[in-house]
Parts: sequence; structure tokens; C-alpha cells
Amino acid sequence: MNDSRISDLFEFLRFPSVSTQSEHMVDMIACAEWLKRKFISLGFQSDVYQTGGHPAVIAKTRHDSARPTILIYGHYDVQPPEPLEEWTSPPFEPTIRDGRIYARGSTDNKGQIMAHILGAGDLLSQGGVLPANLIFLVEGEEEIGSDNLGGFLEQHRAELDCDVIVISDTGMAAPGYPTLTFSLRGIAALQFNVHGPTQDLHSGVFGGAVMNPATVAARLIASLHDEEGRVAIDGFYNDVRPLLDWEREAAAALPITESDICALAGVKELAGEPGFTAIERVGARPTAEVNGMGGGYQGEGTKTVLPREAFAKLTFRLVPNQHPEEILRLAEAHLLARCPKGVRLEILPGHCGEPYYVDPNSVYGKASLRALERVFGRRPALMREGGSIPIVTTFKKVLNADSLLLALAAPDCRAHSPNENFPLENFFAGMRLNQAIVEEIGRLN
Amino acid sequence: MNDSRISDLFEFLRFPSVSTQSEHMVDMIACAEWLKRKFISLGFQSDVYQTGGHPAVIAKTRHDSARPTILIYGHYDVQPPEPLEEWTSPPFEPTIRDGRIYARGSTDNKGQIMAHILGAGDLLSQGGVLPANLIFLVEGEEEIGSDNLGGFLEQHRAELDCDVIVISDTGMAAPGYPTLTFSLRGIAALQFNVHGPTQDLHSGVFGGAVMNPATVAARLIASLHDEEGRVAIDGFYNDVRPLLDWEREAAAALPITESDICALAGVKELAGEPGFTAIERVGARPTAEVNGMGGGYQGEGTKTVLPREAFAKLTFRLVPNQHPEEILRLAEAHLLARCPKGVRLEILPGHCGEPYYVDPNSVYGKASLRALERVFGRRPALMREGGSIPIVTTFKKVLNADSLLLALAAPDCRAHSPNENFPLENFFAGMRLNQAIVEEIGRLN
Repeated sequence: MNDSRISDLFEFLRFPSVSTQSEHMVDMIACAEWLKRKFISLGFQSDVYQTGGHPAVIAKTRHDSARPTILIYGHYDVQPPEPLEEWTSPPFEPTIRDGRIYARGSTDNKGQIMAHILGAGDLLSQGGVLPANLIFLVEGEEEIGSDNLGGFLEQHRAELDCDVIVISDTGMAAPGYPTLTFSLRGIAALQFNVHGPTQDLHSGVFGGAVMNPATVAARLIASLHDEEGRVAIDGFYNDVRPLLDWEREAAAALPITESDICALAGVKELAGEPGFTAIERVGARPTAEVNGMGGGYQGEGTKTVLPREAFAKLTFRLVPNQHPEEILRLAEAHLLARCPKGVRLEILPGHCGEPYYVDPNSVYGKASLRALERVFGRRPALMREGGSIPIVTTFKKVLNADSLLLALAAPDCRAHSPNENFPLENFFAGMRLNQAIVEEIGRLN
Repeated sequence: MNDSRISDLFEFLRFPSVSTQSEHMVDMIACAEWLKRKFISLGFQSDVYQTGGHPAVIAKTRHDSARPTILIYGHYDVQPPEPLEEWTSPPFEPTIRDGRIYARGSTDNKGQIMAHILGAGDLLSQGGVLPANLIFLVEGEEEIGSDNLGGFLEQHRAELDCDVIVISDTGMAAPGYPTLTFSLRGIAALQFNVHGPTQDLHSGVFGGAVMNPATVAARLIASLHDEEGRVAIDGFYNDVRPLLDWEREAAAALPITESDICALAGVKELAGEPGFTAIERVGARPTAEVNGMGGGYQGEGTKTVLPREAFAKLTFRLVPNQHPEEILRLAEAHLLARCPKGVRLEILPGHCGEPYYVDPNSVYGKASLRALERVFGRRPALMREGGSIPIVTTFKKVLNADSLLLALAAPDCRAHSPNENFPLENFFAGMRLNQAIVEEIGRLN
């Protein structure tokens, strides 16, 4: 296909910019430098910045203080391509088959960010002043947790000052379905350890007279939910903002059925909190989930020990307006109140992340919905994602700006997996989406 | 010490007869052959027998069908001596310090069986006919589960026909305290696996809508007991024979305090079924114990997965007149009835062992109590052990004879540990005990 836009994306995709593998350090730098040159060639001011980790690239259009400023965020680092033998074509030799570009990073996130870059470049090439100022921030550590991003934003706060942020790193509700993700769940993590006897005991000699730490851990886990599946921690739902009618309607209107979720999860039946649909349960309701538990003998067969200790790793997924620290406080009180005599309960609080919510009925929300509808020709789906995207809360905290999460990846793009791909039509739609969002936000002025 | 009886025991202890280590196969055979020669030199008929595993030694006195027959069981195999660096003197070079013989096997079980052998040899050397026929059975696989013993007994049933069995392989309630162990708990083992999604899921993307197998496993474990510590499986206690007054009195009279049990277990506080003392809970009451459980992420920190499966390994300790197969049936019904939709419960029944009980008020029970009192000069303690000794139920099943468990080991003899030892006074008491029990049982005739 003789299209310079595709050649640009292919060049970008050929860099094996695997942030987690130190042997690719030089590829990371080369990729960042290449991006900077690409930005400059399209008419942006651009530079590569040190971050304490892999470099970040910033590019800007000429600033007009009378116009709103949009920060467009993306990342040029990619997941490791392994297992290589499962790829039909090599991960760093982009190949088009059946209208899709196959390459590591094509859908996460090089395809989308390059669509935004080329879309904006197109506008710049038409001369004149854009209706909004653009700042591109393309980082190299998203796949390894963006550990340096917060500090980098603090350091460059003035330079990155903006009104709103646009990110295309989420998935569409269904193929070809324009999607605004307007909420993400927050998280609060906690591990508890139940300490009993000083060593594993013979369960014949001592069983019956000594409190079993595994039994206690199991009882504590069981106490987290009531019989019907609600979280049973006192006060857990206190700060949950009830679902609004339009939110429930939007959830019901999503082109995702319960059997789609069953198929994706590999289960025959769903479960969960009564009074809510599965879509609401994963996006709009908080949870208490055991991520791991253990204690005592783990091998084959039987070993008649009364284990000396047991543990559970819990995460709570949170929704507006819950506060992770408050949830950890409530959970800790709940557990401590239920720990029986004869064992010692140790509670280790883990990481926290605030839930995220941007009102689709806000001016920026509405502008993004108009842009999505113009490009895809249908009313956008309003999604709540059950997972967390920590950078979004980092942006809110440091730059005090909302993020518009405009999906460009399809559900079958295989992010993080072999044969990752990005439909050509999504790539071209992404360029148009960039132009539409720039116009719509520019028009708000 | 210039005593031929101690020299005999020392010779016996010098064989590194470690049944679980194949490099000691030749030592096992040499030890069995040595035993046979020792028996013959003392006036027994004796031979070494193949068993399918390590050989067994049988020795007999001349049979008089007018007299009762006592089978005395012991084992010549020992635990591995490692860690060697923790021994004050080498494990297979017996050494006397402070009135104790230090060597691997001294208290488990060479010291005791040699005391019985030499005690009986003494009687034989006095000429005449013993008041009871004696059969010694000394096997070489006790420390590795006595897997071949059942078959061996079946095969030699006629030859091993006896009225009662004497075993000195249990522990005294306190040092110098004559002890009859009259009951052992049985066991029923079961593993359950809770199967959920086909793979670990992202707990953000799916959490709240998919049943978590670790949560289910924890709830099932928690359901095994009521709030106060009773086993909550319907019908679990149906067949439990209530404790008799004399049994409760015997338990209360044991020279063991709750703080002794705390110290041994390494806990600050005991726990368990209401209405029973700790001694009763471990010896006379059945339990449901988690020996191991697991599911999901086991490493450091947090991994936000909703695990695909979880497991628990359970053992039930049983008392007269519970039946392990019936308990497994009840437990299985209990678990299946409580498994929620959305997961699949797999139940794997494990090994079973009947509880054991020999009435101390039976003729043989009383005879053994008289023998113990004669030798130690005080009223014997009546103990129930919480663990299981499978050979005892094997003897009952194949030879239809009760086992009298007459303790000779002290609580601080360190069986299975470095610096295993056996007090000289217990060794000499063991010889006298053999003679006393032979007389007491002979007198029953």
C-alpha cells in the first residue's frame, strides 16, 4: 500500500521498543528520537526529555493563549513480543493481512498515537492556526507502570498546562462502535497474614485445641461478603454515588451481552451483587476480591499439618465517590474485629488508586461525543471500565485536567498477545477523530 | 558402663538402618540379620522374612497352646539423622550423657524393643516355660508408612496368631509417669478444588460479575465450623460415643496442663470446641482441620487476578464410633450443598483410618495397668492420643487382636529430631515391664 501515513506507522512499529527488557534500551532512545524528528517534520516543536527512566517526547503546536489547549497522551513502549513462535508474521515486521496491521504495539499504543499525530500534522499542513493548541506527550514507560510520569508532570507542569487531555488507549465496546470511557474504577490493596503456632503442628496431636490460621483466614475472607454477594464491610457503600438513570440506560445500551462476558471470562454463569446487571457490576459497582490466598501444605496428596500461618491478598475496586484510604481503614477494622483469640492478625496495606469519572454531559464530554459520532457515524457507547488507568488520576492530580478516553482499539486487537493487530480503518478513523476533537474543543472557545 | 544389656543395645543402635534412604538398604539387611542372631542367642526361634520392602524379623518362644499368646511389635528402622551438625555426638555412635543414651533410634524404637527382647530373654534364661507364649515382630518400614505390613500379616496370619499385642512406641504423659494409651483418633482425608474461569482473569475487568473460586473455597472452609468452634457438618457428631465419667476423670488427672500444651504448640492461647478441655479436644473429640489451602497469586506484592481455581486439603480426626467413609460422605454432601453457581466443585476423597479404642477396664487393659503400676510404682495415666497409628488398626483388622500401647519414651526424648535419646532408667524399666506384662497376662489364663 503506497501511503506515506502507513509508511510512517510501519517505521514506528519497526522499533522493538520493549520498555521492560534492558537490551532494548538503545531501541527506546532511537524510537524517541525518531518520533521527535517525525513531529518536527510535520511542523511541531518537539524534544526528547529525560525522565529518570525511558525518555518521553513532547511536541507542541504554536501556542495561542486565546485558544484551549489539548494534551494528547500516548506511549511508544510496547509489551514483550514473546512467545515469538505464535506470531504469524514477525512482531517487529509490520504486515497487512485482511485489512489489519499486524505488529507488536500496533494497537497498544503506536497505531492510535500515530493516528493522532498524523491527523494533527494534516491540520498543520493546511496552514493557519489550529482551533486548539496541541501538546503531545508520548512516554516510554506505560507498559512498566509509568513510575516516572508523576514526577515528570510535576517537573514540567507549566509546559504541559492544558484544559483537557485526550487518550486513545482503551477499547471499543464492539467493533466499529465509537466509545467514550467515562469512568474507571479505583483500587485499594491489602494483604493480611494470620500467624498461629511458631511452627507447623501435627494436626493429630494438636488439632482441636489450637486455632488453625488457615481456617481463620478462610473465615475472614468469607466475612467480606454477605450471602447474596454484597460486600459486608460496615460502611463500604457509604460513599458510593448511586447510579443515575442515564448511567443505567447507557450500561443497558452497550452492545455487550451477558453471554459475551461469559465467553470472555470462560465461565458458564455470571454472579455478583444483587440488583445490578453484569455490566454495572464490573464498571459501576465496587468489589472485594481475593487475588491470592494460601497456607499450609501446597503439594500433592495429604500432609497432616496444622499450618503456622496463612495469608490472603485482597483488592477492592472502587467507584465514585469512594476513597481508597477510607476503604482500607474500614476493611482493616472489619478484619481486626473478626480475628479470634489464639492467632495474631497482621494487616499490610497496599497501593491505592482513586476511581475516575468524567461527566459525559460536561462540555468536554459532549464535545468528545460529537467528535466520535461525526467520525464513526453512530451514537457513541458510554462505557465504564472496571480496571484502573493510574495515569488518568495522575493527570487529574498534577495537571488538574480531565482525560477523555476515546477508544480506537477493537475488542479483537489482541493487545499484549501474539498477533496483535490494528484495523487500517481504525487507523484512518483515528486521524479523523483527532481532527474532529480538535475542532469540537476549539469551537468551545 | 560394663553391662552386656547396654552393649546389646549399642550394637543395635550402631546400624544406620534408615528405611527411607536407599543407600542404607544393606544396613537394613545387616540389622535384621543381627536381630535374628540376637534372638537365637537368647533362646528364641527366629528368622528374617521378605516383605516386598525391607525385611521383617519374627522370633518366638516355644508354643504352649494352653497359654495365652502375646505379640510384641516394634521396628528396627529409624528416621534419617539429618541435620547432622545439630547432634552433640554422632547419631550412630551411641553415647551416654547424664543417664541418657544418645543415638538415632534410641527412643524410636530400638531402645524399647530391645528392652522387651532382653526382658523376655532374661525370663528364658531362667529356664522353664514362660507364663505366656511370645511372638516378636520387628519390622523395618514403620518410618515409611508400614506399607507392606498389612500384606505381610495376611500372609503370616496363622504364624502370628495371638491374643493380644503389646507395643511400646508411644510417649509417657510426663517423665517417669507410667502411661497406657487406650485410644487413638481415626482420620478421613479429602481435598476439594473449586474450578472457575478457564484462566486467571483481570480482577478489574471481570471482578464483581464472576464468582471468585478463592472466595468460594474460603466460604466452604468457613462453613465447616459454627461460630463457637463445633464442626457444622450435619450429622458429624451422630456416631460419637459420649465421654464416660471415668474418661473425663482420667483426662483431668493427666499430668499435662493447658500451658504445657501452649508451650509445645508455640501459641499463647488455646481454642476449640466448647464444653471440653484441651486434653479432651485433642484426644477424645473429632475435628475438621485445614491442612493446606491455596489459590491465585502466591508471590510478593499484588497481582490483580481473579484466580481460575482454588483448593483446600482437609482432614477429619475421628473418635469412636465414627466411620471415616461415613464422615467423607457427610462432608461431601455438606460441601456440594454449599457450592454456589458459577463455579464447579471437585471433591477428591483421600485416605481413611478407623479410630482405635481399647477399654482399660477390659481384662487385657487391667493386666497392662497392673504391669505398669508394678514397674513404675504409681498409678498409670490413661491417655488418648490425637494422632493415628495405622498399624494398630491393621493388627485389629488382620489378627483381630487389641494392642496395648505401653509408653516407655519420655516427652523430651526428641524422637525424629537431633539428639534423640532414651533414659537408661526407661531402658531398664522396659525390661521389667516386659516381664511384668508377660506375668500379668499369663496369670489371666
